[in-house]
Amino acid sequence: MKTKLSLLALVSILGGPLSGAETNAPTNDWKPCPSNQAGKQYPQYNSEGRVKFRIVASEARSVGCTFRDSSEFSKGEDGAWYGYTRPLDEGFHYYAIKIDGAEVPDPNSRYFYGSSRWGSAVEIPARDRDFYALKNVPHGQLREVYYFSKSSDKTRHIYVYTPPDYDKDASQRYPVLYLQHGGGEDETGWGRQGHTGWIMDNLLAEGKSKPFIIVMENGGVSGPRPTNATPAGAGPGARGAFNFSAFEKVITEDLIPYIDANFRTLSDQPHRAMAGLSMGGMQTRSIAPAHLDKFSHIGVFSGGSIAVTNITDMAKFKEQVKLVFISYGSRELGTNRVGGRGFGGDPKENTAALKTAGVNAVFYESPDTAHEWLSWRRSLREFAPLLFKD
Amino acid sequence: MKTKLSLLALVSILGGPLSGAETNAPTNDWKPCPSNQAGKQYPQYNSEGRVKFRIVASEARSVGCTFRDSSEFSKGEDGAWYGYTRPLDEGFHYYAIKIDGAEVPDPNSRYFYGSSRWGSAVEIPARDRDFYALKNVPHGQLREVYYFSKSSDKTRHIYVYTPPDYDKDASQRYPVLYLQHGGGEDETGWGRQGHTGWIMDNLLAEGKSKPFIIVMENGGVSGPRPTNATPAGAGPGARGAFNFSAFEKVITEDLIPYIDANFRTLSDQPHRAMAGLSMGGMQTRSIAPAHLDKFSHIGVFSGGSIAVTNITDMAKFKEQVKLVFISYGSRELGTNRVGGRGFGGDPKENTAALKTAGVNAVFYESPDTAHEWLSWRRSLREFAPLLFKD
Repeated sequence: MKTKLSLLALVSILGGPLSGAETNAPTNDWKPCPSNQAGKQYPQYNSEGRVKFRIVASEARSVGCTFRDSSEFSKGEDGAWYGYTRPLDEGFHYYAIKIDGAEVPDPNSRYFYGSSRWGSAVEIPARDRDFYALKNVPHGQLREVYYFSKSSDKTRHIYVYTPPDYDKDASQRYPVLYLQHGGGEDETGWGRQGHTGWIMDNLLAEGKSKPFIIVMENGGVSGPRPTNATPAGAGPGARGAFNFSAFEKVITEDLIPYIDANFRTLSDQPHRAMAGLSMGGMQTRSIAPAHLDKFSHIGVFSGGSIAVTNITDMAKFKEQVKLVFISYGSRELGTNRVGGRGFGGDPKENTAALKTAGVNAVFYESPDTAHEWLSWRRSLREFAPLLFKD
Repeated sequence: MKTKLSLLALVSILGGPLSGAETNAPTNDWKPCPSNQAGKQYPQYNSEGRVKFRIVASEARSVGCTFRDSSEFSKGEDGAWYGYTRPLDEGFHYYAIKIDGAEVPDPNSRYFYGSSRWGSAVEIPARDRDFYALKNVPHGQLREVYYFSKSSDKTRHIYVYTPPDYDKDASQRYPVLYLQHGGGEDETGWGRQGHTGWIMDNLLAEGKSKPFIIVMENGGVSGPRPTNATPAGAGPGARGAFNFSAFEKVITEDLIPYIDANFRTLSDQPHRAMAGLSMGGMQTRSIAPAHLDKFSHIGVFSGGSIAVTNITDMAKFKEQVKLVFISYGSRELGTNRVGGRGFGGDPKENTAALKTAGVNAVFYESPDTAHEWLSWRRSLREFAPLLFKD
């Protein structure tokens, strides 16, 4: 808190990039965002990474958006309201439109589940967007699947990505990655805003990854509230949600048996991986090491790291774990935010120590991104080629 | 127009049901709608079929919704705005919220593609909702599939429903139904608001239908504009969109070969059906009869009918067409609206005449519904058991 205040004070004294940018007119090279609804010209992005909105609200007193440090919205010649953001990171950001005290989805954007609601998000095409682009390559399928979970006593909704050739050869069996979303998100996240299918299709077309099945569950299974309440503001998925035992039961007792019975999997430990982002990363480093008979590959994206001191039986760990992959957006590192230095130790140092201890541990830093989907799309791109290598 | 005015005048003089209902307080048995976002208490429905909204907009001058004849919205004790609709038909209805001249999605509802936009819709549980409920029965999969279409020179996005046992026995092959959405909707419609998967899962669990694959494409393929412009107000999908030749090419030249090459289909004419709702029904009765070498079963839901006089070779038609299924919501019949009496002749009479001519023609009337999804869910429930009977 002290650091933050000092930084703000410094920026204010020196006239930092933030306040400076707000007084200059934005660069006038706006283009419609790829996250818009079909045919919609707004929101638009420009080469600075700003996003400009157009909202029709003829009788409104004030219009705005939830991005901090945005310009004031004002009426244009056509009577619609216009406003724009500060320069944002490339990639994908959730937001809402504010109209006279209401916070509503932008009628021009497509909708995504995040921040614990279906609502708007905007995509600013990244320089390296090619790896998650829809191309004319062989495509896998994203399958919407319902199965009955005994431990949660309900029919649950999951997505399963099957690689392009899955239906071609009924004798081939595949490894499986269980891939989890973040807090306030759900099982739709990796398939929609994560572009999991297109990332895998492109990696496979380039021969960069082995084909495997990806299973996406909803990790927000409500479990018993921990006796020691989680500290407020402990990051996404807080509010006492950090007890993962109910989800642990679902994945190990219901989901894995269902997938192995209904898809052509290689169902042994060497061919099963778990990974997740943010809260999903915490779930992964909580659940996978506790079930080393089931998982051999572990991926934690912006969700902390695994310290050598947390591994009770290093010999067993090295024998059973084929990969520990830890990643972060560069802007998260060294901060006190989720997964930064203050969150279970410096993730880069922890991962280096794992490697020194003889674990196949890999650290990836996504350039110029924070706690956001571009970090996680890139993490999947880096993680997938390391899976199931023998 | 004349008829409408007279009816309105009459209602006004006699104090008809519409104006009467508006002066009485709505029945106070409100329950959250099943179409709400998880955890949202509003919108709510009551036993009269009214829907009540709650919108937080502290500084707004006026709030409302797009349902005609709704109550005025006013601020409740909690400072939020409340308002409710007239009694609506059971089932599914698109709407938007109005805030000071803006038309936006309701932040409390889930979102659907219809009326040519992603936006809000509300579900009022129907008395017969059991047939489209999610149950603990074997479930098929709804698969998101991309394929390259030469005729439209682009990668296209479709959904494919595969029945519950599809992955169990690699030797079994299945018939295929091509199922089209309405104007202003897209390939997501039948899977989301149509509940196609749950309807089929339930029919199959009860042994009421043969298992078959269902393919859902986007029928809004832009084709050459017809030289005679379509009359304005000709129904959903108007604006010159009634030339289906581009979509006809996509389905017959690209989609069917792709599906037959990539799914375990029975690829002969007796095992291929086409059906659609509204614009999709018009596409069906335009495309299927022109390709009787490809389609044997035809379903038209609220999209007109097939007159005996439109069939040039009745002997051939009777030989090749195993079923003509025509359906309507009861409130559509006898009106001048899409598919009503003024739209290619009375559909019930046309279908009876087909039957007299020796065609296996079936007419279904959905009770107490109009041009809306409950009519079409029921139509699928009635249509599916008649398909591929030998």
